[in-house]
Amino acid sequence: MAKTIESYTDVLIIGAGPSGLMAAYWMARCGVNARVIDKKGTKVFKGHADGLRSRTLELLDSIGVAQRVLQEGHEVFSMTSWGPDENGKLCRQVTTDLEPSPPYAIAALSQGRIERFLLDAIAEHSNLEVERGVIGESLEYDEGLESDPHAYPITLKLRTLSEEEASPAPAHGVSDRSLNHAVDVDDQKDTIQRRKHKVGTVETLKAKYVIGCDGAHSWTRKQLNIPFEGSTTDHIWGVIDIVPITNYPDMRRIGSLTNASGTVLIVPREKNLVRFYVPLQEEQEVSQKFDRLAVTLESVRQRVKKIMSPFYFDFDVCDWWTVYQVGRRIAQTNAKGRVYLAGDAVHTHSPKVGMGLNMSMQDGFNIGWKVALVAKGLAKPSILDTYKSERYPLAEMLLDFDRQWSALFLQQEQQKSHAAPVAQETLIAMRDVLRKTEHFSQGHTSYYRESPLVCKQSKAVAQHLTPGEKLVPVRLRSQANGLPSWTTKMLESDGRFRILLLAGDVRSREQASRVWACGDGLARLLRQFTPAKDKLDSLIDVRAIHSAPFADVELDMFPSVVYHFDENEGCDLTKVWSDSACSWGQQSDGKGYETWGVDRLRGGLIAMRPDQYIGWMGELEDVADLARYLQGIFVKREARPML
Amino acid sequence: MAKTIESYTDVLIIGAGPSGLMAAYWMARCGVNARVIDKKGTKVFKGHADGLRSRTLELLDSIGVAQRVLQEGHEVFSMTSWGPDENGKLCRQVTTDLEPSPPYAIAALSQGRIERFLLDAIAEHSNLEVERGVIGESLEYDEGLESDPHAYPITLKLRTLSEEEASPAPAHGVSDRSLNHAVDVDDQKDTIQRRKHKVGTVETLKAKYVIGCDGAHSWTRKQLNIPFEGSTTDHIWGVIDIVPITNYPDMRRIGSLTNASGTVLIVPREKNLVRFYVPLQEEQEVSQKFDRLAVTLESVRQRVKKIMSPFYFDFDVCDWWTVYQVGRRIAQTNAKGRVYLAGDAVHTHSPKVGMGLNMSMQDGFNIGWKVALVAKGLAKPSILDTYKSERYPLAEMLLDFDRQWSALFLQQEQQKSHAAPVAQETLIAMRDVLRKTEHFSQGHTSYYRESPLVCKQSKAVAQHLTPGEKLVPVRLRSQANGLPSWTTKMLESDGRFRILLLAGDVRSREQASRVWACGDGLARLLRQFTPAKDKLDSLIDVRAIHSAPFADVELDMFPSVVYHFDENEGCDLTKVWSDSACSWGQQSDGKGYETWGVDRLRGGLIAMRPDQYIGWMGELEDVADLARYLQGIFVKREARPML
Repeated sequence: MAKTIESYTDVLIIGAGPSGLMAAYWMARCGVNARVIDKKGTKVFKGHADGLRSRTLELLDSIGVAQRVLQEGHEVFSMTSWGPDENGKLCRQVTTDLEPSPPYAIAALSQGRIERFLLDAIAEHSNLEVERGVIGESLEYDEGLESDPHAYPITLKLRTLSEEEASPAPAHGVSDRSLNHAVDVDDQKDTIQRRKHKVGTVETLKAKYVIGCDGAHSWTRKQLNIPFEGSTTDHIWGVIDIVPITNYPDMRRIGSLTNASGTVLIVPREKNLVRFYVPLQEEQEVSQKFDRLAVTLESVRQRVKKIMSPFYFDFDVCDWWTVYQVGRRIAQTNAKGRVYLAGDAVHTHSPKVGMGLNMSMQDGFNIGWKVALVAKGLAKPSILDTYKSERYPLAEMLLDFDRQWSALFLQQEQQKSHAAPVAQETLIAMRDVLRKTEHFSQGHTSYYRESPLVCKQSKAVAQHLTPGEKLVPVRLRSQANGLPSWTTKMLESDGRFRILLLAGDVRSREQASRVWACGDGLARLLRQFTPAKDKLDSLIDVRAIHSAPFADVELDMFPSVVYHFDENEGCDLTKVWSDSACSWGQQSDGKGYETWGVDRLRGGLIAMRPDQYIGWMGELEDVADLARYLQGIFVKREARPML
Repeated sequence: MAKTIESYTDVLIIGAGPSGLMAAYWMARCGVNARVIDKKGTKVFKGHADGLRSRTLELLDSIGVAQRVLQEGHEVFSMTSWGPDENGKLCRQVTTDLEPSPPYAIAALSQGRIERFLLDAIAEHSNLEVERGVIGESLEYDEGLESDPHAYPITLKLRTLSEEEASPAPAHGVSDRSLNHAVDVDDQKDTIQRRKHKVGTVETLKAKYVIGCDGAHSWTRKQLNIPFEGSTTDHIWGVIDIVPITNYPDMRRIGSLTNASGTVLIVPREKNLVRFYVPLQEEQEVSQKFDRLAVTLESVRQRVKKIMSPFYFDFDVCDWWTVYQVGRRIAQTNAKGRVYLAGDAVHTHSPKVGMGLNMSMQDGFNIGWKVALVAKGLAKPSILDTYKSERYPLAEMLLDFDRQWSALFLQQEQQKSHAAPVAQETLIAMRDVLRKTEHFSQGHTSYYRESPLVCKQSKAVAQHLTPGEKLVPVRLRSQANGLPSWTTKMLESDGRFRILLLAGDVRSREQASRVWACGDGLARLLRQFTPAKDKLDSLIDVRAIHSAPFADVELDMFPSVVYHFDENEGCDLTKVWSDSACSWGQQSDGKGYETWGVDRLRGGLIAMRPDQYIGWMGELEDVADLARYLQGIFVKREARPML
């Protein structure tokens, strides 16, 4: 009989895809007692999601892996759309330059590589490892324990799977297991299945918090009886990652190509791969009777060939393929008690809007730091409610966007396929939808609402920044060495809240005295919130950003909260930054204050959450108001002795 | 009795430091039958060399690892010099902004990490592995076989060492072996000693070529009886890599600090490490009687403390340290028959000029591709003579620079240490030396002379480029996708010669017909030189760079040598580039032609060696002259059938 064991964890993450790993990153980074399980025996190596928007790359920059994505991935700068002209001749109809949002453009890279980088970031900061080949068998939730932060209201039974159970033969597509020879060098160790416990072991696990990142068919969601509303459409798409042999000239641009036989969506990728999305039925054939199981790689090839014609199209190398039935569904909620859902467990939609991976990673990023800080006993449990209020409305917007856009896309496609010019009203409707959703779809606006974490009533010391939105990235120079850095990287995701002391022009004597007075206030504030045993900047980190010319400023012009010497610690030289142009033009432009809308003389204060979202803003004199904002978030401490 | 085995290799590289690995990269990349041995049981993990000039970063970009260096390493933008003022008070006397040479600034990173990246680049392209714990016991050279390219004139006896023999206890410094717990995650597998053969095995190895990269005490050099001329100076320096605890404000800038007790040189590094070079004797104590063996980490700490005073200075973490007796020596030659020497085996000098690692890597890079192409039977053995003519004069210049600079540095230091203003004539002499050597020391000029590889008499179609010098990096946009790339990365070091077809303004009908005629000529030329069994661009790769606006140009405006469709291969979309500004300002400025001094309408032709050095230049009509240049390099082929 299989052995049964019992154990406890503060946080359990179910599913080690992109959203689960983003959440796990925070556990690793904050030193939370956590576990991560995944039912599959190995990580993903090939295929799956692949599109990263610039805002997602900013997150990856803040955890130190954006450079790896750019090194391996394919950045996309140009998008084209092909269709038949009035004579039925296929031609390029629209070319769009995708204006990147600095510091990053859009990039495409296989999900397996993105997971590799996240796993490496986790390993760099902890011993947390994904336990693979483990499924949940039951989940019980004791509401009576919910209000006690020390209690374990969730009881799960977990079972360790055999190699066969953990790698079922896929109905379609290349099995990851058959590809061992071709996986990247640094993934090879992960092709071997390992188990923490013996096969068949059943473990009873008590958890304080659970984050379910287990995909569209989420086991966690089902255990919680949360309905998954919406429907599976009748559209069946083939997805192939191939090295194309073709004379189509735009193979390295993102694009769509439509003719009488249908449409392909084209996404250029790493290593000369290109992803094609292709509908597997002619328009008139779409019906529920279509037999998915009859689809072969050969039939997908023939469909793409037909649509790409008169361009030549073929391939020898297929890295991965699958068949995809578009479902547009949303979970009725993304949180129940102390169990949270993230990613595809909450929302599924068509691939046409290119947002799935991004929304999922942002979900995991959002819930991760909140659970980590609460589980560590640093933040109040009440901040956990903001996960629902911040992320659920975005899931609704996502599905709404997908619904509108897919309908219009279909209209346009049908018109094109009959070699008719696309109707003016269709084009106007598409443009309107794009305009209306642009800020959302690009990730520029998140609409996070008033909450303990977001003080919407802040003073507008930065006129172009909004509480509840991300800090707009700018490039600053370190006062310690002149080295320029984007704020996305400089304000590393390490679990700390950050106070940006926008010190203004510290050459002015009057301004300097405001800055020093503010510095004293901030030092008292850190002592008020930081546990006595910890370093003073372990919970909240103050960074000064001044607007005076780099060469006119010395570090000792700043108060001790950002620059002081300690015989045990030395000086922390990472805390003072200059918004000034670098002699090497492209490296920093000295326009950070301008981008943010901050007065270059007087500066201001900005409180940032660990995820680079703005929580609060005020004048240098508003430290008491800042303290009230932080009191809504952090657990109250005993008075800490003055230094 | 130990087993004796006999084997053959085309190329043997002795020593797997930076110069040996650079040479090995080419063997991996070009698929040469090669071996690499190193007497130490493991790679370097900590300490050793650490300074990378921008030109060396360009090489690393061309082999795909520059991003890893920038991600981990510390870029240096600012340099300061401290000394006593007339009242004896220590103050910052000079601040210099180090104007980076795009695309790269100077960077500092431990040699162990640089070797990691080189090893990974080698593994990406081949199964070539460094055989560690192997020493040469004898080397015999048969001059009679030298002229036969198929012969093996070099016979070596190699012996496999035991773990103890391969990791002798160091006289000074932290042993690598004691640091296993702290090595980087991706280095951990290399902390375990592995042997190809059983300990004690003696192997008789016959080689066509040997490259000795075995350091200042080179065994290879000694076997060849090549004198190592110069002397060991009496100056003993301590070198420590530590995390400083100090209130010295310029800890993250490169710098020097001098007072009455001496001078420290300061190099900020990765992970908050800082390297200090410190003379271990007071000026008046310098003598041969100094006992190196008596030096301890503690005594080095006390010396640095004394010199840094009145700044506080101490450390808890020491990552690595050693004691270093400055020697200034040069081998009488860097080549003897088919055996070549590279790196410290040829030249050693003081650390003051910060060039050692760079010169060594460039040596290995230079000899590597030449030996690789000759060993493959593609290039004529006569090109190997250019290793000596290109690299040996630079070794002489390096020592000369070090000699002059060290003397002036010492003068200046002595004046400073007496709190006297540095004498005007010393300052002028220092400035003059710096000016005279600037192009050389920064790596901007290499002075490679006329040879089969460098045609100095080329037409000046690019007025700012010089045959025998590196192509000046510019950023161009791929015509296939609009993506900008620096030429350093785009012209990947893959072993191929490159012809840059500077197509000029292809919108002009007249210019277009010149380009197409040139394209036909180039296609014939490729057929003339490329082995019949190989792809037409396997030996020489043609890239077109036009000057017309990106959006006005289509790929099919270019001749088939850079754009054509093949039913087996598809289209190669990497060959056509646009020198035009990117909508996203910082990404490319459209000034490549201007930087190179090329006529924007008429363009020109540039032939580049595999190491991005310019070999030949001419007009679009000069293909016959280009063919003559290539005939001096490549082995003559049978006529290849026309396509």
